[in-house]
Amino acid sequence: MNYYAAPVRDLRFVLEEQLEHRSLKLPVFEDASPDLIEAVLEEAAKLANDVWAPLNDVGDKKGTTRNSDGSITTATGFAEAYQAYAEGGWNGIGVSEALGGQNLPEVVASSVQEMLHGANMALGLCPMLTAGAIEALAHHGSEAQKDRYLPKLVEGTWTGTMNLTESQAGSDLSKVRTKATPEGDHYRISGQKVYITWGEHDAAENIIHLVLARKPDAPEGNRGISLFLVPKFLVNDDGSLGERNDVTCASIEHKLGIHGSPTCTLSFGENAGAIGYLVGEEGRGLNHMFTMMNEARHKVGVQGIGVAERACQHAFAYALDRIQGRSPRSGKADCTISDHLDVRRMLLSMRARTDSLRALALTCAAEMDTARHGESDEARDQAQARVDLLIPVIKSFSTDQAVEIASLGIQVHGGMGYVEEGGAAQLLRDARIAPIYEGTNGIQALDLAGRKLQRDGGDAMTALIDDVNATADRLKAHPRFASLGEALAAGSDDLRAAMAVVLAQGQELGQDAVQAYATPFLNLAGHVLCAWQMGEAALKAQVAIDNGASDPFYTQKLVSADYVLKQWLPVGRAQRAVIDAGMQCLSDFTVSS
Amino acid sequence: MNYYAAPVRDLRFVLEEQLEHRSLKLPVFEDASPDLIEAVLEEAAKLANDVWAPLNDVGDKKGTTRNSDGSITTATGFAEAYQAYAEGGWNGIGVSEALGGQNLPEVVASSVQEMLHGANMALGLCPMLTAGAIEALAHHGSEAQKDRYLPKLVEGTWTGTMNLTESQAGSDLSKVRTKATPEGDHYRISGQKVYITWGEHDAAENIIHLVLARKPDAPEGNRGISLFLVPKFLVNDDGSLGERNDVTCASIEHKLGIHGSPTCTLSFGENAGAIGYLVGEEGRGLNHMFTMMNEARHKVGVQGIGVAERACQHAFAYALDRIQGRSPRSGKADCTISDHLDVRRMLLSMRARTDSLRALALTCAAEMDTARHGESDEARDQAQARVDLLIPVIKSFSTDQAVEIASLGIQVHGGMGYVEEGGAAQLLRDARIAPIYEGTNGIQALDLAGRKLQRDGGDAMTALIDDVNATADRLKAHPRFASLGEALAAGSDDLRAAMAVVLAQGQELGQDAVQAYATPFLNLAGHVLCAWQMGEAALKAQVAIDNGASDPFYTQKLVSADYVLKQWLPVGRAQRAVIDAGMQCLSDFTVSS
Repeated sequence: MNYYAAPVRDLRFVLEEQLEHRSLKLPVFEDASPDLIEAVLEEAAKLANDVWAPLNDVGDKKGTTRNSDGSITTATGFAEAYQAYAEGGWNGIGVSEALGGQNLPEVVASSVQEMLHGANMALGLCPMLTAGAIEALAHHGSEAQKDRYLPKLVEGTWTGTMNLTESQAGSDLSKVRTKATPEGDHYRISGQKVYITWGEHDAAENIIHLVLARKPDAPEGNRGISLFLVPKFLVNDDGSLGERNDVTCASIEHKLGIHGSPTCTLSFGENAGAIGYLVGEEGRGLNHMFTMMNEARHKVGVQGIGVAERACQHAFAYALDRIQGRSPRSGKADCTISDHLDVRRMLLSMRARTDSLRALALTCAAEMDTARHGESDEARDQAQARVDLLIPVIKSFSTDQAVEIASLGIQVHGGMGYVEEGGAAQLLRDARIAPIYEGTNGIQALDLAGRKLQRDGGDAMTALIDDVNATADRLKAHPRFASLGEALAAGSDDLRAAMAVVLAQGQELGQDAVQAYATPFLNLAGHVLCAWQMGEAALKAQVAIDNGASDPFYTQKLVSADYVLKQWLPVGRAQRAVIDAGMQCLSDFTVSS
Repeated sequence: MNYYAAPVRDLRFVLEEQLEHRSLKLPVFEDASPDLIEAVLEEAAKLANDVWAPLNDVGDKKGTTRNSDGSITTATGFAEAYQAYAEGGWNGIGVSEALGGQNLPEVVASSVQEMLHGANMALGLCPMLTAGAIEALAHHGSEAQKDRYLPKLVEGTWTGTMNLTESQAGSDLSKVRTKATPEGDHYRISGQKVYITWGEHDAAENIIHLVLARKPDAPEGNRGISLFLVPKFLVNDDGSLGERNDVTCASIEHKLGIHGSPTCTLSFGENAGAIGYLVGEEGRGLNHMFTMMNEARHKVGVQGIGVAERACQHAFAYALDRIQGRSPRSGKADCTISDHLDVRRMLLSMRARTDSLRALALTCAAEMDTARHGESDEARDQAQARVDLLIPVIKSFSTDQAVEIASLGIQVHGGMGYVEEGGAAQLLRDARIAPIYEGTNGIQALDLAGRKLQRDGGDAMTALIDDVNATADRLKAHPRFASLGEALAAGSDDLRAAMAVVLAQGQELGQDAVQAYATPFLNLAGHVLCAWQMGEAALKAQVAIDNGASDPFYTQKLVSADYVLKQWLPVGRAQRAVIDAGMQCLSDFTVSS
């Protein structure tokens, strides 16, 4: 029962019908045709289904082993599955040709990521972190650094890591203490980093660590932090691997889930000091890291969607197999539980939410394509402003929902959901990390309600809400969808009203006061934006139906849309009342043990 | 950091101030004084804090071991901790003196249960199941059976189990196949039962299994099922233990949580057939079992509250210790995260919800006391009608909330929440079973919206909603609480309106149609009833403040009440819109893999 079938049909619906292959219209992607993209998705699905998915359970059960010399042995088959991925050229899918990649749009890269994370989230983390390293080096590395490190990273022969957190420096990275002492053309790095995903492993021949550290004379706080590149094996001028650098895995975490992903404590400079190289400008380490953080946050949202999709499939398969009770629909004795209305409620809730989250994440990916490659400054800036708003929503909302969806998946299984043998429990355990890493969901909410909303007085958000309203108007004008349009318009009004409250709080009382409203505001935005996407999906599905499509896929999208707009959106809309109630209680509250 | 302090102060507030020791006014409890109850709570807290709580982590890490002979070794210290409980007389706390118990009210027994489950949920399950067996025997056993088995069960020397589920018979117990073949004055039982909590263990000298099975000539379906008593060791006429019965533990489950609790597959009659004795009437096994199921469902709700309380304490302690970032309240650098408003939002949400769930569960316990011991038939019947409504709400809503609260507890911990060392993850893993066992939460919702609501046309629910309105009126009339009263009244109106929809559906389309509305209706009821309790709590806390109480405990109850009524209730009220939207989408939905 523990299988996974990559949702190519659903992905294609969003890319082709909902987004109308918008990204392919950008000149930079002129070589990419719809046929090519279809072929890419089908090939990625094969890798996901046949190679990665069967190892999901193995990774969970075997976990990773730290050997006495500090090396890590990943679960059986993981190294080979990673290599199959690298050899297939998947690592460079969204990377430009100039850097050795396939130069496909972000919408395609994100689709592939969703499939791979759905197949095997623990393994998917390895390339996810590498992508961050590629991004940071491509933007901030010197030409020599790019020449030396990027080709191997892009082809996946080497992997990358992000070394930010230290035990005293988590959400507050200004407290980073790792030291970088200048020595000729390089630095000696010493200190300890924690929670380093795939920080050490046996799946690739080298690991390129990107490390936040400070020079001995650097000022306190953010401005003293620089970014350094620290290879596991030093790289000779001819590109061959040289000496082992002074960085070791001191321990690995025993985690709730993603057991197949080694989460390492890395010790830099236990001996002579690890050799590292400054990347970008001195004192701009945090800024440089945030280049990759933003991308990574979108990817974590996509990861949540991948796991949510797998949880759907797992629960659907069980519900279609498990016989229990009399059907309330046909009256037949001994029906499968998929006939019970309360089980159907859970299944539809899982399916419809996952559909809507996917559409939102890919819509953001399309904006990312325009932000990078749009034909005018104005087009790029507008798209970037929208990406900036959407990313914290996609990161938090998709991952919070993924946890709920995985938990519902357990519930559908009944007792079998609670025993590990059933497979549903792993999905909750795996999903639970996603609201925490790459900036907790609370941090995302602050980013949205604080920085992103306040800096332009809500202009970008207003434009987004206007687009939601436009969709609501189109729904209202459609003979079939008037009630969906009313529902969406009401949600949109709530979001606009809540934005006004949050903006007023920010202007009157400053960014600190906004903190209290941040999570309810993001939650409201998530619901409204997902409902927006499903309104769009309904309109596009109806076009297909009107054109004679007989595929039940389309009528089922209408069902998903109906659920999201009428059954799920109201729950999100309640956050307006929460915001209107004010947040005095949070100040009156005394936290005491 | 992994500690627990039983919430005696909070429990006493509900028992003494909110419920005004209502149960003690029943003649049957004339020997129980407030002072005695205070002493009992303090003693139970010691057992919970000093003996049970330190083993919570041990049970999780060590789990239980099944030995090659089928015996079970529980985690180090568990057997002793159980024996300390039994020797302290705690097992009989809510049992009448006639049966060898302490004859204390259910409100007190439930309070003690909450503390013990908060301390160690996995261990708490052992006496919880025994209580069910006591209840079933006390109601349905013959005098000879009571004489032979009850004293040892009540004193806790022996434990009890409930053997219902078989692999093909879960929510649908009509499919039970275990066979009971008559043989003289007893039966030979053969078959396999799954998910038997504490089905085999080393913590007590005997185990009394209560087993659903059918005679060879019994009709199909529910009416063919009878209840049998099957001791692990046969009991001689003089009360001494005789031969080992033919029941063995075939395997134990590898579960997501409650690792300290052995969940067994029990094989009856692998050899000659296990000797069993009919309990109560032939063919009435399911009815007899439901006597204990109802009690057990309340206990599972209380268990959820216990774990939620522990998750609160765990998160509060971490938030008061973890330093990160600048305080948005004082501006001070390097504050504890308990100063961040978004963290405070999570903590208050955890605390306020737990407070309200506790008050509701104990209010139900007070009704249980009246239902059992009220002075008139009318008083008993009225109380029972209310208990019947409240139990499915308390079971489902407390356990769903416990899962959310435990998950928020992880979130408060950030990265440390995801590593097992932090202790927060165990609480989510443990809590996650509670929405599944003793009837899934979906089954509870059907029980409420179907049987309980429809059978009296909503009379009992109307009386309950009237009481909620009365509280809303008192709040509205109070100069401090007008806005809380408005909020509660609005919630109450929603519940009344939703009830009308559900009743109409049931009358027009039958019980099957009600299924679609059941979970949203229960969810709405849970929110409104919790809000009702916190409205009551606010009124009582204000009385104490008006009387000059300076304990900040009271002002903090007002903060909890404010949160529940203004920030949490609106989310529940959204379920009215969900219900009003109708459930057509659930029928239109095609479940396909």
